[in-house]
Parts: sequence; structure tokens; C-alpha cells
Amino acid sequence: MLDFKAFLQKYGPSFEQEMLAYISQIEMPAHLKDAMLYSLEAGGKRIRPMLILAVLKAYRLEPMLGLDAGIAVELIHTYSLIHDDLPCMDNDDLRRGKPTNHRVFGESMAVLAGDALQPAAFGKITDSEIYSAEQKIALISALARAAGASGMVGGQVADIEAENIQVNIEQLKQIHALKTGKLLEFSIQAGAILANASTSDQQHLSEFARHLGIAFQIQDDILDIVGNEAELGKPIGSDLNNQKSTYPSLLTIEGALAQLNEHHQKANSALKKVNCNVTILESVMNMVVNRNN
Amino acid sequence: MLDFKAFLQKYGPSFEQEMLAYISQIEMPAHLKDAMLYSLEAGGKRIRPMLILAVLKAYRLEPMLGLDAGIAVELIHTYSLIHDDLPCMDNDDLRRGKPTNHRVFGESMAVLAGDALQPAAFGKITDSEIYSAEQKIALISALARAAGASGMVGGQVADIEAENIQVNIEQLKQIHALKTGKLLEFSIQAGAILANASTSDQQHLSEFARHLGIAFQIQDDILDIVGNEAELGKPIGSDLNNQKSTYPSLLTIEGALAQLNEHHQKANSALKKVNCNVTILESVMNMVVNRNN
Repeated sequence: MLDFKAFLQKYGPSFEQEMLAYISQIEMPAHLKDAMLYSLEAGGKRIRPMLILAVLKAYRLEPMLGLDAGIAVELIHTYSLIHDDLPCMDNDDLRRGKPTNHRVFGESMAVLAGDALQPAAFGKITDSEIYSAEQKIALISALARAAGASGMVGGQVADIEAENIQVNIEQLKQIHALKTGKLLEFSIQAGAILANASTSDQQHLSEFARHLGIAFQIQDDILDIVGNEAELGKPIGSDLNNQKSTYPSLLTIEGALAQLNEHHQKANSALKKVNCNVTILESVMNMVVNRNN
Repeated sequence: MLDFKAFLQKYGPSFEQEMLAYISQIEMPAHLKDAMLYSLEAGGKRIRPMLILAVLKAYRLEPMLGLDAGIAVELIHTYSLIHDDLPCMDNDDLRRGKPTNHRVFGESMAVLAGDALQPAAFGKITDSEIYSAEQKIALISALARAAGASGMVGGQVADIEAENIQVNIEQLKQIHALKTGKLLEFSIQAGAILANASTSDQQHLSEFARHLGIAFQIQDDILDIVGNEAELGKPIGSDLNNQKSTYPSLLTIEGALAQLNEHHQKANSALKKVNCNVTILESVMNMVVNRNN
């Protein structure tokens, strides 16, 4: 059985090294580089790049073929965290147990570090020495959509607008489908693009990715209530303090767990229709559902 | 003689319309779209897209072939203005005679509107129905470099770090070569990519673009002292109030004018080596040197 934790241990260190090396070799002012590297080095689960590698593995291809696309999506994810933490946004002091970017480098540098990570992501894909021209264009097009107004940023706006008002469960799912779901979907899609997967496989993998994204968010919300601060690296109960609508606040913890289970089942059903070795993707899904940070 | 003003009058309106239509058709939260369109509709000289069109015209190609790349560079330029105006950056209340984005939509929406304009720019190039795959990749690679840490954002960081300290004229040129120069250079380069210009032509056009960029900045600095507030759409004297190093502050107005003249000459010399009809590019340079807003 392919275990995702073992997979992460095998490929994670090379991924970290390559991502940091890519940013390090760009000629830029020293403080800007420090600020960009600070947030990239702050760790994190690297679930987005690892999803790309896992899809390639499922197609019996070399997982590290997903490296360039994986670096790109992690740079986008990291910029979004830096900007989300800003005083004018969530105004967070801690991220992954360390002071947030603007607390260390100041607000203007944090804005600019985030701004510079975006083009670095798209440039990483154009620079790839192994992707075909068609693959590069498909990846950039998908990433631009997933990261932009119709994706992650649109979800962030919808999330801010939903603060302090009562949303229903469908609206909540829609917000998260954009805010966190779209980049996770991109990752699965990127793996499929690089594996030259059939249209049918791409559709079923996208369905898997949508359920994975929702499950990921439900577990995030549950951990904000029942999680361990030391393991999470951030204070628990922040959603409650911010009066944010969450799965547990709308459904109770038991209701949220039932939804988590439902999306787990649906993700596995979608996977059954994909013509590849899905064991590792099932293992990813188990990790999402059972994670404690 | 091809006159750049007539050129702008001919192609400007279609450009505006196409750029706004592109953003309007993206599905996103209404407030986000309002914020993005507000800054795009605020006007501006559209010099970057028009440079692309002008290079195509110089190669006797249809200028509107530059539309998609022109929209992309204008989206990047516009995002940079929104973020530059933020309270944590220049804290400006007015831009082109209108309240700045964050004054109208709030700080978090201004950050996100800027964030969403970046992927929209890269996505516009991948979506083009007329560029070849190789042209798309060359354009995205060049735009990512010009906009990112080694280009515009790096220049913005260097500019902030130079505030309140004495920089020399070479350092000042270096800051502006990045902050404003790189996107102008990209525009010339984009025109050359789309015209399939020879390597030699591309090199001489890049040299032209570098001098154009410096001349543009010198004239900007001069206008901040001798300009007309109503024509500029912003208060004059802001550089002086911010104790910013500028060409006139380092060289006097006369010295700055001498430098402006020198870069004008050098730009024209570079143009003489390019194998195309350079009249319209000379006219662009005249416009940069003689503009009053």
C-alpha cells in the first residue's frame, strides 16, 4: 500500500530545496528576498504540490515531473497567506507558530513580498525545461483562473463579505469551493495535464478534487474548535471569536463530521471511475480527513 | 508622418472597450468587479499597451495584434498603482484626479482587487486566439520577469528603501530602471516578439526602451515640480514633501532637462539601428519628453 506520509517524506525535502533555490537565485533587493523566503520557509503541509506529485505517481509516472507546477502553486498559496494575515485583512500575528510576515518585515514589505510571489509562480512554469509548450499554457491558464477573481481571490472577497452575517450551508460551501477549493482542484488538474490524462479521467479527478477541497475545509473548521494549539501553530477558537460561519457553527460538530464522512465517500466514488492506480489518492484523502494540523 | 497622438486616438477607444469587456465577463463577486473596473476606468495614458501597438505598426503589421498583450501589461500596471497608493505604501488619496481605490472600496478590497488583476493579466495571454504557443510563453516569461522581484516589485522595494536617505544619480537610475522601466521595456519587447523581430532588432529596441524609460521618469520628476495640478490629476510637490530623491533634486531642473535630452538622443540613435519604420516610435519618444501629464 502506498502511504501518503511516506510519499511526503520521500519527496518533501527535495521539493523544499528546489522551491527555495528557485527564489534564492532571482536577483532582487536583499530585504525582499528575506521576506519572500521567510514565509516559504515557515513550513506547511505542502499538500498542493504533493497532490500534483501524487497524481503523477497514480499514473505510474515520475512524481518529480510535477516539481515546477508544484512550486508554482505553493508560491501562489504562500502569497495568499501573507496577504490574508495583513492588518487590513485578518490581522493575524501568528502563522504556523511563527510571527506573520508583516509582523517581521513590516506591512509594505509583506504586501510586496506577496505581490512578487505571483509572477514568480507563472514564470516558474514558463521556465520549465521538461513541460511541452501546450502543457505550460494549460497549466498557466488553469492556475490564473484558480488563483484569480473567479477563484481564490473571489472566495476571499466572498468570505470577508460573509463575516457577521448568517450564511447557509450552500453559501458556505460556495465560499470555500473558491477560497481553498480552487487551488486544490488546480493541483489535481495539473497532475492530470502533466500525465496527459483522458478527458474522462480529468473530469472524475476534478470531482474527486472538489470533495477533497470541501473535506479539507470541514476538517479545518473542526480543528479550530477541537484542535491542539501547539500542533496547529495558531490559536484555536479564532473562527468563533471572529463570528465566522463554519461547518460546526451551522451543523454542530456531529453534523460537520457527518458531512466530512459524506464527502470522503463521494471522493472515493469519483476515484473509482479513474483509470489509474488510485491507492495513493485514497491515502491523501485519508490524511485530509484524519489530520490534526 | 505618423503622429502618436493620432495613433492613440485611433486605437485607444477599442483598447479601453476590450480591456473592460475582458474583466467584465469574468464571474466574480460584484464588489470585487466594481473595484477592479474602477481603477481600470480611471483613465491614464495607456502608454504601455500603445507601445506594443506602435512596435507592430513600425513593422507594418496590424497594431491590434498587440491587444491581448497590451491588456495584460495594463492590468499589471493598474494593480501596481492600486497597491502603491495603499496606506502602508504611499498613502495617497488621489490618483488621476479621483479618490484612490482603497478610499472608495476600503483597504482589504483594494489589496484583493490588485491581487486579482495579476492572474487576469497572465490568463489574458494564455487565452489569446491569435498568438502562437511560443509567443504566449515568451510573453508570459517576459512579463513575469518585468513585473516581479527582479523588475517592478524589486524597484518598488528599492524605492521605499531609498526614502529619507541620499542616493546618487546612478542608484536613482537603477531604481527607476526597475520600478517604471521594466514594464515599458516589456511593452517594446512584446511588440518585437509578436512581430517576430530579429535578435539584433530586439536588442536595439530594448536599448531604445531603456532610454525611453529613463526619459519617462525624468519628465515625471520634472512635472512633479513644474506641472499643473489639474492636468496631472494629483498634487504637485509630493516628491519634495516625501523627501524623495529625484532627478531635479540631485541635478537641478536644468541638469534634469540636460539628462532628458541626452536619453532622448540615445533613444533615437538606438532606433536608427532597427530595421523597421521607426517614425512612430520617434513620435512616442517626443510625446514622453514633451508631455505635461
